[in-house]
Amino acid sequence: MGGVASAATPVSMLMNDTRSDFVIVGGVAAGPKTAATLARRMPDAKITLFQKEKFLSYAPCGMPYFASGDIESFQKLMMTPYGVVRDERFFETSKGFKVITGAEVTRIDREKKSVTVRMLDTGESFVHQYGKLVLATGAAPIKPGFPVADSPMIRPFTRPDDAIAFRNAAQQGEVGKAVIIGGGYIGCELVESAAGMWGIETTLIEKESQVLPNVLDPEMAAIVEREMIRQGIELMTSAEVERIDLNDSGNPVVSIRGGDKIAADYVFLCLGVRPSVSLARDCGLRIGGNDGIHVDTHMQTSDPDIYAGGDCVESYHRITGANVCLPMGSLANRHGRVIAENLAGNEAEFRGVVGSFFVKIFDVNVGSVGLSQKAAEALDFRAEAVWGTFPDKPDFYPEFKLFAAKMVYAADDGRLLGLQAAGAGDICSHVDVFSSFLQRRGMLDDLLDFEHGYAPPYSEPVDPLHHLAGMAIAQEMGTRFVAPGVDFSDSALVLDVREEHEVSSRPWPTDHGREVLHIPSGELKQRIGELDSSKTIYIVCGRGSRSYQVALMLKQAGFENVHVVGGGVLASLV
Amino acid sequence: MGGVASAATPVSMLMNDTRSDFVIVGGVAAGPKTAATLARRMPDAKITLFQKEKFLSYAPCGMPYFASGDIESFQKLMMTPYGVVRDERFFETSKGFKVITGAEVTRIDREKKSVTVRMLDTGESFVHQYGKLVLATGAAPIKPGFPVADSPMIRPFTRPDDAIAFRNAAQQGEVGKAVIIGGGYIGCELVESAAGMWGIETTLIEKESQVLPNVLDPEMAAIVEREMIRQGIELMTSAEVERIDLNDSGNPVVSIRGGDKIAADYVFLCLGVRPSVSLARDCGLRIGGNDGIHVDTHMQTSDPDIYAGGDCVESYHRITGANVCLPMGSLANRHGRVIAENLAGNEAEFRGVVGSFFVKIFDVNVGSVGLSQKAAEALDFRAEAVWGTFPDKPDFYPEFKLFAAKMVYAADDGRLLGLQAAGAGDICSHVDVFSSFLQRRGMLDDLLDFEHGYAPPYSEPVDPLHHLAGMAIAQEMGTRFVAPGVDFSDSALVLDVREEHEVSSRPWPTDHGREVLHIPSGELKQRIGELDSSKTIYIVCGRGSRSYQVALMLKQAGFENVHVVGGGVLASLV
Repeated sequence: MGGVASAATPVSMLMNDTRSDFVIVGGVAAGPKTAATLARRMPDAKITLFQKEKFLSYAPCGMPYFASGDIESFQKLMMTPYGVVRDERFFETSKGFKVITGAEVTRIDREKKSVTVRMLDTGESFVHQYGKLVLATGAAPIKPGFPVADSPMIRPFTRPDDAIAFRNAAQQGEVGKAVIIGGGYIGCELVESAAGMWGIETTLIEKESQVLPNVLDPEMAAIVEREMIRQGIELMTSAEVERIDLNDSGNPVVSIRGGDKIAADYVFLCLGVRPSVSLARDCGLRIGGNDGIHVDTHMQTSDPDIYAGGDCVESYHRITGANVCLPMGSLANRHGRVIAENLAGNEAEFRGVVGSFFVKIFDVNVGSVGLSQKAAEALDFRAEAVWGTFPDKPDFYPEFKLFAAKMVYAADDGRLLGLQAAGAGDICSHVDVFSSFLQRRGMLDDLLDFEHGYAPPYSEPVDPLHHLAGMAIAQEMGTRFVAPGVDFSDSALVLDVREEHEVSSRPWPTDHGREVLHIPSGELKQRIGELDSSKTIYIVCGRGSRSYQVALMLKQAGFENVHVVGGGVLASLV
Repeated sequence: MGGVASAATPVSMLMNDTRSDFVIVGGVAAGPKTAATLARRMPDAKITLFQKEKFLSYAPCGMPYFASGDIESFQKLMMTPYGVVRDERFFETSKGFKVITGAEVTRIDREKKSVTVRMLDTGESFVHQYGKLVLATGAAPIKPGFPVADSPMIRPFTRPDDAIAFRNAAQQGEVGKAVIIGGGYIGCELVESAAGMWGIETTLIEKESQVLPNVLDPEMAAIVEREMIRQGIELMTSAEVERIDLNDSGNPVVSIRGGDKIAADYVFLCLGVRPSVSLARDCGLRIGGNDGIHVDTHMQTSDPDIYAGGDCVESYHRITGANVCLPMGSLANRHGRVIAENLAGNEAEFRGVVGSFFVKIFDVNVGSVGLSQKAAEALDFRAEAVWGTFPDKPDFYPEFKLFAAKMVYAADDGRLLGLQAAGAGDICSHVDVFSSFLQRRGMLDDLLDFEHGYAPPYSEPVDPLHHLAGMAIAQEMGTRFVAPGVDFSDSALVLDVREEHEVSSRPWPTDHGREVLHIPSGELKQRIGELDSSKTIYIVCGRGSRSYQVALMLKQAGFENVHVVGGGVLASLV
């Protein structure tokens, strides 16, 4: 390999350097991971990575925390744990491959096995040949379907420049009011970035009727929405943006269909991303139904000499069997390893995704894996769900916190389909464990077999996954669960089985003046005569488990229309 | 069922109550869980639970936190989340089964299907017949093999009375100095209970050469030991207690074989527990090789009318195929569910254990699941291990913490055998996820396939389990890992590949005056000539990952005796 490359490498030198064994396009996650693994496996191979931007191997998922001010400098996102910046020199000397930044690959010639590269600073182009080519071209923000005025204060949040622009503006006190358009996970993260440390008055606008519509069911999203409102965010759901103009002072004004106009200093366009596949499409590689590059389990494209990974590809979904685009840095890294192993002649496969997802929104931890109930139903699964509110440690242990969880499963055979969890409590291990079961087509019985670590500082003797599996089995035996916050029919009876002190401190939040019958669970056996068995009964308690036991009791006593309100009153207060 | 039972139920009344469909012996975890589940499934069945102690359904694992003062009252350990004490009345009215406390079952007559019950307050006995019998008789402390003077200040820590006795003594300032004999998990938890809030000068004495010998390998136990020493605990390993006497003031004096005598105000005997099986043995039930009651996967004993669960039974170990005794409240609860389902006519199995374990020791979180390397080797597995030090969130995220992990696997086929983790960082989800893989005979490839949730507040883009699997695969391809803190042979060369600033802030802790060659990883390619390829080389870095990459580089360059020091320098500083 030649000397240390840098943005200052003269084009003439690059032009004379005409071929690499491996050429990699893209320098954020999948690209550098592929190159570094490959260089370890094949130290004598010549590997060249072209990156369009000047930033390399930064952690895109860390950008909201740089924007918020939690992370001091952008450079920190590009540093190794031991304080070395991952720049051209680092990759050349420590990782053993060459990196050219400011270098846009504009064309792939599959017959000649070459790429055309344009140096952005000079505009000059050259041709470089490859033995094998790896595309890690990432994803780009989806363009709004409404008119947007041209302003540096109206922009997406996907690139380092976006994060730096906002951070600078916020730091200089230029942003008193921000509007975030789109309540997906980037939008939700930015709510905290803007309103948290900078104290910016923030409005979140989401077209759908809930935030995080792709990963949460409405009643679980409600936990996130309540937290945003509690933190002073103006939340507008089912709100469609009509246009964004500039007012006389040059500040953005967001017009909502129906009339509202919101003036702001800064507008984030968080409408999602789409795989960047123009290079792949132009050279005739197969593109999948979701507009991502099609790859097989070896991450090989329709051309055996070209591999692809990261946000630009489609992944096989292990539960649905369909292909999906899941732009995640964690997946991109795993793609990179698989590509490198295959290029080095070692068999490796990427067997698909289940859709693991975490996001922190102020004091609420949110996690989801697999399918939401609405997603499962849309795919014609006979999906059922159970809910519970759980402490993340035993109640007797100081400083336990609560979270609510919803589990989705297939009623036909008990196959696990998805888990959603949200609340102040620690949710991570439950979501990750559930993911490991989804990976191997887990069933309800597998959850009952799960041996979690138990010690009071960390967990309860009975794991939330055991409880959820038990509820699901009970539901299949006839005890019906309904979502927290469900609308009851007017003729239904709400039976609150909590103790007096619980009811008085947290009354059942009914806004219809509906009659709520209150009988503590311990007295129910004696007072069962007070219930009208002809009515539909909804049982509510603190966290959902007493209701479930009461439901079994009522069923045994001959009541037919009995429902458990999943997660209890506290599901709204996690 | 009759009226509400309580300790005051007249024996005459009990004597007239001569038969239950289900009789359960033991009221801590497996017993009440069995009874409660059964009562839900079969509300018309008559279920009677006999409990020798007055305490019911307390959380034994919570007792160290009551002893420490973290939990205010013992009653809290017996309370439902909604503040109701789980006493006789609670079980009768809310759970639907009858509980008699202070009632010791002294004999089982399998032919007559009856138990003899002695009321401890009056000494009167009566006979009660069963349809099916469930034994949940728990475990009892192992008696010391050395003479112990009789004193209320020398006692085990397994029963409520033990916890209450210590708590009272500590609260009244009677304990200035405590000795804990036995460094298993109860002993380790009590270190913090004593030294933490009460500020008691504490000595821990362990016969083996390390603490937690049953669950950790020595180099992982060293992390716990360092934390204890850092917190001012006097730690004596490889120390055998010869006798415990009382001095003239009536205070305990612990004599160590070899000469040391330690005077103390309080001595904890934490020598482990043994299943309480005398009832089962006396009536001829099959007892296993580890002195626990033998049960099949339905938790049925050798008598089809008798089931058993909790600390008194042996469990099938999923990895070793042998039976083991694992006294854990979490397993007892799962046993209870399985017993109840089978008694209710629903098929349920308990398919075995993998040995999940958490313990908190001051600021160090410790977790382990599966086999330690020494346990695996003792069982003739060709067990290999890899180590790494990891942050629990990305390095760029504020307030990440480190932990060290060791993974044990079978070199023959890549089967996963065990994971140990310890440090200030959050370890729980990794241990729990690993457990879920062990449950289904997971292989290294399964870890690579694992899709963890990634967001900077919770996790890194590449999961520690991915890193460990990658290292294991590299080891099978020839890169050797050695344990942190391993003793190098005198002729070996230590190659420190960290940056200057790392070396100066944390020099490699060599106490032999050994020469350490320092070449930062980024310079190694250029300076490879400085290495003597005839020597055995041990490569050390910060966390283990650079060493691993350097080892690959050296191997490619023809070096043969190259070893990676697992986990790096930081494995000693987590």
